[in-house]
Parts: sequence; C-alpha cells; structure tokens
Amino acid sequence: MERQVWEFLGVEVPIVQAPMAGADSVALARAVAKAGGLGSLACALLTPNHIREAVREFRAGLGKPIHLNFFSHTMVAPDAAAVERWKGALRPHYERLGLDIEAVEESRLRMPFDEEACRVVEEVAPEIVSFHFGLPDGSFVERLKRRRIKIFASATSVREAKWLVANGCDAVIAQGAEAGGHRAMFLEEHVASQAGLFALLPQVVDAVKVPVIAAGGVADSRGIVAALALGASAVQIGTAYLKTPEAKISLLYRRALDSAGESDTAITNLFSGRPARGIANRFVFQSGPMSDHALAFPFAATHVAPLRAASEKAGSTDHMQMWAGQAAALARPMPAEELTRTLWKGALTLWKQGGPS
Amino acid sequence: MERQVWEFLGVEVPIVQAPMAGADSVALARAVAKAGGLGSLACALLTPNHIREAVREFRAGLGKPIHLNFFSHTMVAPDAAAVERWKGALRPHYERLGLDIEAVEESRLRMPFDEEACRVVEEVAPEIVSFHFGLPDGSFVERLKRRRIKIFASATSVREAKWLVANGCDAVIAQGAEAGGHRAMFLEEHVASQAGLFALLPQVVDAVKVPVIAAGGVADSRGIVAALALGASAVQIGTAYLKTPEAKISLLYRRALDSAGESDTAITNLFSGRPARGIANRFVFQSGPMSDHALAFPFAATHVAPLRAASEKAGSTDHMQMWAGQAAALARPMPAEELTRTLWKGALTLWKQGGPS
Repeated sequence: MERQVWEFLGVEVPIVQAPMAGADSVALARAVAKAGGLGSLACALLTPNHIREAVREFRAGLGKPIHLNFFSHTMVAPDAAAVERWKGALRPHYERLGLDIEAVEESRLRMPFDEEACRVVEEVAPEIVSFHFGLPDGSFVERLKRRRIKIFASATSVREAKWLVANGCDAVIAQGAEAGGHRAMFLEEHVASQAGLFALLPQVVDAVKVPVIAAGGVADSRGIVAALALGASAVQIGTAYLKTPEAKISLLYRRALDSAGESDTAITNLFSGRPARGIANRFVFQSGPMSDHALAFPFAATHVAPLRAASEKAGSTDHMQMWAGQAAALARPMPAEELTRTLWKGALTLWKQGGPS
Repeated sequence: MERQVWEFLGVEVPIVQAPMAGADSVALARAVAKAGGLGSLACALLTPNHIREAVREFRAGLGKPIHLNFFSHTMVAPDAAAVERWKGALRPHYERLGLDIEAVEESRLRMPFDEEACRVVEEVAPEIVSFHFGLPDGSFVERLKRRRIKIFASATSVREAKWLVANGCDAVIAQGAEAGGHRAMFLEEHVASQAGLFALLPQVVDAVKVPVIAAGGVADSRGIVAALALGASAVQIGTAYLKTPEAKISLLYRRALDSAGESDTAITNLFSGRPARGIANRFVFQSGPMSDHALAFPFAATHVAPLRAASEKAGSTDHMQMWAGQAAALARPMPAEELTRTLWKGALTLWKQGGPS
C-alpha cells in the first residue's frame, strides 16, 4: 500500500483535502499538497478573477496538481410569497437580535458552474474538477474532458454514484451522512434516508468501476484504514482541516469546533436552503433542523446572513453557520502539512500491525 | 488477530448475533454459536417461561455461552387525550385498509426488565445479559453481577457510553445510526444528531476503558475489518442474520430485505413510539418518519398492530414493520453458521493482505 501510486489523484498520499467554500484557503491547499495529498479550492463563492488568482498562488513554485470544486445547482429565484414566508419564519430571530428584516442587503450567493466558470477552468486547466449536487450540463463536461481535466463528483447513494459514472465522472466521492457541509443529494430527496459511510461506501464501491473516495466521519488514521478496508481508493477529509491554522474561520467557530462532540451537529437547510451538516445551535433547533419555510438554495442564505453576522459580532454562536462533520472531536489541531503526514503515517502503521491489538 | 481470545465474549469469533425481538430464534443463536460467534436471544417480547424454555433449547448438547437481551424502559401508560390523538393520526390508514380503530385488541407489548425477568435470569444464569435504552434499576445490576453475569448495553453517543460504564457495564455496544431496529438512545433526545458508526465508534473507544462492540452498517467482511480498525473489540450484526433461513420473518419482509438498498430505510417512531430504523414504506413517509402523535413507547404499537397484520395479509408491505439497517444489500443470504464462518474468514484474509489492492 505504501508504494502504491494513487494515479487517479496524481499524488503520493490518498488524502483529498475537502473543498470548503468560505473556509478553505490557498495556504491550506498548498500545505496539503506539500505533504503529498491533494490540495483543493472551493469555487462556489469565488469570482472568475478570484479563481484565476488563487490557482496562480497555489501553483507558485509548487509543481503539484490542484483540485477545483464547483456547485452544479440551478438557480430558480423564489417568488414573493415564498420570500414572505421565509421572512416570517426568521422574524423572531431578527427581533431577538434587534435587527430590521426589511433592511437586508444582497450578498454574494453560491453560484453554479456556468459559461464564465467553464472558461476560467479551461484557461487555468486544473488537474481535477469536482462537482457537488450532480453535474453541470453535458456540454460543460465534454469541454473539461477535451482539456483532459479529470472529473469527480459526490454521491450520497448508489443511484447517484451510478448516474455520475454514466455521465462521465472519473471518480466518485461517497459522502456518508457524517459529513460536514452540504449534502450532495441530487437524486435523493429524503434526508432521513441518507446513509452513513459504513453502509454507503462498500455499496458504492460494489456498484461502480471507477475509484471511490470516502467522505464523512474520517478525521484520524483509524478512519483512513477503515475507509480503505471498505474499498475506498482514497479519503476526503474536511472537518479535521478546519482545525488547522490555515483554515479561514473565525475564532468563535474554531472554539465551537474544539468542543464539538459526535452528537453536537445536525443536518439543516436553514442557512442556504439545502441540507447541510453543521454544529447545532439555538437557531437550528428552534427553526429546524429542516424547515419547510426555507427558500430554495441558495436564496435562503440572504436573509440569514445578517443573523449570522450579528450573532458573531455579539460573541455568540447562537445564529452562526458552523459546518462540521460528526468526527470533529477526533481531529487534533496542527498545521495542515503536519496533519496530512501524521494521518497517513499513522494509517500505514496501523495496517502494518496486522490488525488492532 | 487470528489467535486472539475474545475473552470478554467467551467465544472464538468476535461476532455477536444481534438480538432481534420477534425475528431471532433459538435456531439462529445456536447456528451462530456453533460457528464460534455469540448467539443471542431478544427477550422483550418473551414471557419468563418462554425465556426459560428458549435457554434450555439453546444449551442442549451445545456447550456455548448465551447472550440474553432486555429492554430497560419505564412503562408510563398514556392518557386518554394522547390515545385519541394517536387514533386520529392513524384513522386514514384504518379507513384505507377497511379496519375499525374502535375494535383494536390488546397485544403483548415490549416489556421492561423487572423483578420477574431478573428472577428467571438469575435462575438460568446466561453468560451475558445486555440492555437497550440504558440500564434497569441498580439493584438489578447488582444481582446480575453477584451471579457473575457480564453486563453489556448499547450507547448511541459518547455520553451514553460513559454513563453505562460508570453504572457497571462490562462492555459497550456502540450503535451507529446505520443500525436497524430501535435506537438505544436514553440520554440523547435528537434523532437528527445521532452519529454514524464511522464517527461514533472511535470516539466511544477513546472515551471508555471497556471493550466496545460495533453495531450498525456491518454486514460483510470488509465491515468487520473496518470496525476493528476503528478500535472495536467485536462487531454486532443484525440485518445480515435476518437474511438467513433461521430468522423468523415473513416472506414479504424477506423479499423487501432482498431489495432494500442503502437509501431505503428511515428512523421512525410510528411502530412502537421510540425511534427505530426500518424499511421506509407508504405508512412511514405519509405519517412520519417521526411523528409528534405517536404514543409513548411501547404503547404506540397496539394501534399499529392491526394495520401491520392487514397489510401483510393483503400481500402489501405498505404498513408493515420491517426493521433493517442501511447495509442490508451487503448481506448474502445463507445459513447462519455458514454466514458466521464466511464473514470471519473473509475478515482474516483481508487483514492478511495488508491492505486493499
């Protein structure tokens, strides 16, 4: 295993740093890449110019592959009645925080992969592009393939995994229910039926012929070995990297992560309109975790942004968006390069022991 | 690993057959025991005489340890208003099936471990007794310990695991959210925050000093290796044994299990009043999966029993209770003794390979 070449990733260590919109950084991606893992950048909140600049910074003197991640949703603006319902659901929180819901300003929304994004990707030619929420239009997939860019995407079920492979994916990220951040669900509809990694991963491995990357609940060396035993070709790690100094998160969020146990998160649609796992706070339990009133993704975010900002400003996590997986407590805070090396070294040692003592 | 003695279980193979009230059987427990695993009997639906008789049958000429499982809930009879609310929620289903909700008869409810149960356990002296939903009164625990009966119990969180050990448990069963049947939750309240096995297991292992048994999502050899890698001392397997001929389940249930994928179950409180994972059917999605109207455990079961019976009689799974975990599809149907041997042999082979190819 030690000498295996992880050709489908183009790196020496089968650890993919999870792209985390709003929390990852060029410094994080570079640190992971230096340790032999796959560095990633989430692009859903970046402009084309930001993407161009970030890739340039990542590559400077490094000589490592880069993985860019995009969302592939469709934008359907909500009607006025839906907006009013959502405002009605949020009004008690606005009142508690002394904010005016009629004074909400537009903020940058999570954008889908489109013509503009495709052009910048063709221009910067990353080694790997991954998608969340299915795939963009087939013509985009074709254009990336023509550039020999490998295409990965996340699946939360066997059905989604098969669909992704049938539509051109070179690898599938099996996203267990433990994962922090947005559920990749694009064919599945029931959050209550989302499978844990233990059940999902081997069933996806059995169903597709491409490499499968395990995501969700992997935050230490034991998890890496377990994922490989279940048939994964690599792991994708998110929450553990949130605890590194390279992650761009606030001090409050960082402290909440430090004390988050395995039962302290929930899947909620309150922050964006789509189900995503984060640390469950007052807002999540009082208005959700899943709400029928939340506007369609990504529009729900606009009216939640002032609550998040005011909460953080007041030093309270009550209304903050704090994506985290269920294995946060397994991750030890250390620089990302050291973390990547430590995780992989530990996994190799565990295998060599020929089983736990 | 091959030569390790699983002393805490008293068996040669670290596989515990999950106790499954209403579905397990003496034949199943004997078959697992013959292959070197731990045979189990769920006792929540059995009378003391049934328990006495089943243990006698299990032991005849076998010479293997036995594991008896009990529920440790408290029975609080619902008030008339709650019963009416529950009947109101079920009425549309009764009408669809042409049944009279006023003609429902009493049926045997899941009973808690009590004085009568304790006396029969002291009498038959099983090697291991396990509890679901916490532990019974401390005086009962003391009496079992005096008989040198080992006490196990299920935990769905680190907090529950620590509590169980502090209150006398000799081993903890870490029940991942993937598991079929009742969630063991006794301190945790939020189904939405229940952790998958990948995240739960290593955190429980790190938190307690007793052996930890992994439950939920383990249905093939890969799962056994993965669980051991995450720190488990053994695995508990349920759904895979439901597919053996020794399981006492109906043909319709068996067929539903054969086609159940990783996304076909949900945690529902509709059948008993407590959250439990089963195959999601019309009833589950129309009235739940979680309902505020369900009577407290175990009383919800009484008014659902006629729906289940009528559904099955009509050859429909629409209203059936079909407990199943998320890894049902990984289990190959074969006799239980053969299954136990096959699973363990496969696990040993996988470890010897020194990692997946």
